[in-house]
Amino acid sequence: MELSERATATSNAIATVFEFFSGYRTGVEDRDVRADLTFGNPHEMPLPSLVSTIKARMEPRATNWFAYKTSEEEPCTVIADALTAELGLPFTPADIAMTQGAFGAIGLAFSLLLDPGEECIIPLPGWFCYGAMLRTRNAVPVQVPLAEGTFDLDVAAIEAAITPRTRIVVINTPHNPTGVIYGRARLEELAAMLTRKSAEIGRPIFILSDEPYRRIRFDGIAFTSPAAVYPHTLIDYSYGKILLAPGLRIGYLAINPLLSEAEKVALRSAAQPSQIGGGWNFPDAPLQYAVRDLETLSIDIAELQSKRDRLHGALTQWGYDMTRPDGTFYLWGRAPGGDSVNFTRRLREQGVFVMPGTLFDRPTDFRISLTGTAEMIEASLSAFHAAADG
Amino acid sequence: MELSERATATSNAIATVFEFFSGYRTGVEDRDVRADLTFGNPHEMPLPSLVSTIKARMEPRATNWFAYKTSEEEPCTVIADALTAELGLPFTPADIAMTQGAFGAIGLAFSLLLDPGEECIIPLPGWFCYGAMLRTRNAVPVQVPLAEGTFDLDVAAIEAAITPRTRIVVINTPHNPTGVIYGRARLEELAAMLTRKSAEIGRPIFILSDEPYRRIRFDGIAFTSPAAVYPHTLIDYSYGKILLAPGLRIGYLAINPLLSEAEKVALRSAAQPSQIGGGWNFPDAPLQYAVRDLETLSIDIAELQSKRDRLHGALTQWGYDMTRPDGTFYLWGRAPGGDSVNFTRRLREQGVFVMPGTLFDRPTDFRISLTGTAEMIEASLSAFHAAADG
Repeated sequence: MELSERATATSNAIATVFEFFSGYRTGVEDRDVRADLTFGNPHEMPLPSLVSTIKARMEPRATNWFAYKTSEEEPCTVIADALTAELGLPFTPADIAMTQGAFGAIGLAFSLLLDPGEECIIPLPGWFCYGAMLRTRNAVPVQVPLAEGTFDLDVAAIEAAITPRTRIVVINTPHNPTGVIYGRARLEELAAMLTRKSAEIGRPIFILSDEPYRRIRFDGIAFTSPAAVYPHTLIDYSYGKILLAPGLRIGYLAINPLLSEAEKVALRSAAQPSQIGGGWNFPDAPLQYAVRDLETLSIDIAELQSKRDRLHGALTQWGYDMTRPDGTFYLWGRAPGGDSVNFTRRLREQGVFVMPGTLFDRPTDFRISLTGTAEMIEASLSAFHAAADG
Repeated sequence: MELSERATATSNAIATVFEFFSGYRTGVEDRDVRADLTFGNPHEMPLPSLVSTIKARMEPRATNWFAYKTSEEEPCTVIADALTAELGLPFTPADIAMTQGAFGAIGLAFSLLLDPGEECIIPLPGWFCYGAMLRTRNAVPVQVPLAEGTFDLDVAAIEAAITPRTRIVVINTPHNPTGVIYGRARLEELAAMLTRKSAEIGRPIFILSDEPYRRIRFDGIAFTSPAAVYPHTLIDYSYGKILLAPGLRIGYLAINPLLSEAEKVALRSAAQPSQIGGGWNFPDAPLQYAVRDLETLSIDIAELQSKRDRLHGALTQWGYDMTRPDGTFYLWGRAPGGDSVNFTRRLREQGVFVMPGTLFDRPTDFRISLTGTAEMIEASLSAFHAAADG
């Protein structure tokens, strides 16, 4: 059987995740699971307000209620206004492409900018699907480590990885898995370097600012989008995180209003054809109708923060070396003993499940999802305590 | 602004459609529209049974109700059973990949099999998105005309178009825009040729059987899927046609159970990574829960058939050269005078809108969508009568 090279490369790029997912609870009875803190999936019932707004939008009000939908005018207007207020940049509805979640928006950005063999810089550690999404487009992921210790952007390391084939640098902020939010000064340093390198290679290097966790921040910390400091930036966003409902696919790709008019027109004109060509990459009709409401809904961020505090406090006290996240669903740290596979196996024996750093190409580290309930997190503590000695 | 070559080629491939869509009703007041018979969109309220089943599935019954969904076990089982009964082939749930409608399934098939520069044969006339979907993947569409007059498959013409780079032949049955359903004998002839050519070029040429209109057939006519006569066949399907609700994205790609076990395993294993890599190409959670119900629902096919009969009868009587469709939403024929742009302009002046054949690379012909209401169709008749003289 000859699959395409792209399909084989895609499977290889995500093989570690599939291997983990298919096996991590094999042989474990559900009753023996104290806490599954692996994926950023919901462990509590969905927001009632989410359910009621979508149900209301399932009730047809016109013959074209479930007709083909692309980037509908109303959600694009709502989002442009909200983004303008949130990021301080003058977005217009034409800058917004409605997509099947952030996955759809990232895929759209890759398709708009990358041809086969071209390169996209992604962070290490980083989200475990960038590589597969690039390989599906016959493009080349180039992993660049974040700064050791802080997981801040390492601008010199990014610069060193740039070649004439580099088209995109993915900046994921707040960052999965570390929870780091990049500060404005560092982003300005990045922007200056990219401006210089773009001139050098003779075409603009884009930033894809992957911001699905943008509104999931702790301690009132500020947020700067790379779009504010670097015109050649596209932003992807998903409602799947803030609503903790990733099985309802809605998000968007936003074109930076700071781009030149000609560049904005080119990107706007190409978006819809590429979304159709990709596979009708637009959200379902009822979700698009609900955007005005979705913009007002959120899981309880204060509760998420208190789960972060509880776990981060306990683990740090027991000697774990943890990164204190400023946002996202996750808590990231070094596995005691430095072998995350061995460490997660010990936790597993206690009915506690976390993600080994192997899924992020950092086998020394591990990730905890804070989307588990407060009860699960309490129930997990003794296992973390017992495993603290490595 | 340097977009990717793929994005530019995608825009070019679909430019005629965009140009038509953005302008065809410009300057026309809604009250002056007698009948918009262009796109296969709904013109009546959605099926109440569709609304009630999806609304019921919006009510969460578990904490993971809106968690990430891939190809869920229940819908895959329902579909495998239904397909087994319908096509007489022994599908198993593992053969089914749940996708974002037929667009998602076609995109998945292309990604699984095609690398950049490889070729896919598509019918002329044919659905106007294949080219864009191929270009988004840097693959090459090769248009092969259907048999003149009958629009049956022209096996010799397909054979003549095959090169060592040919990986897929798209067979769309029932066929958009002509409504032709290919008979078993012709499909067997195609299968024999493809078997021979596959041996010649040293790797299997696949059929992608694009069957979203499979259940929209008239006069009780039989249906043979290419999968029944040619093992190297993938089937794509969408619920968007039979439910006339394309704004709710759900469909599937089915792997032919007649393939060897090794080939099935390879395709099954690669499907999910490629769906993730493509952009989380799975239907939203509530739609997946509803598949058992969706399988039982349908628009009124008898009514569609009577609209076909009414229009086909009237136009033929007035001297139009029309193809009598055996299925689909469409009626296809030759524009009086042989210039579809001029013809559609004349209809437009009467408030009647149809698609010029330019969108299908057959400028002499035109397409009518039968999804307009019976009232619209009655209201359109005088305009068709007046335009009959070319």
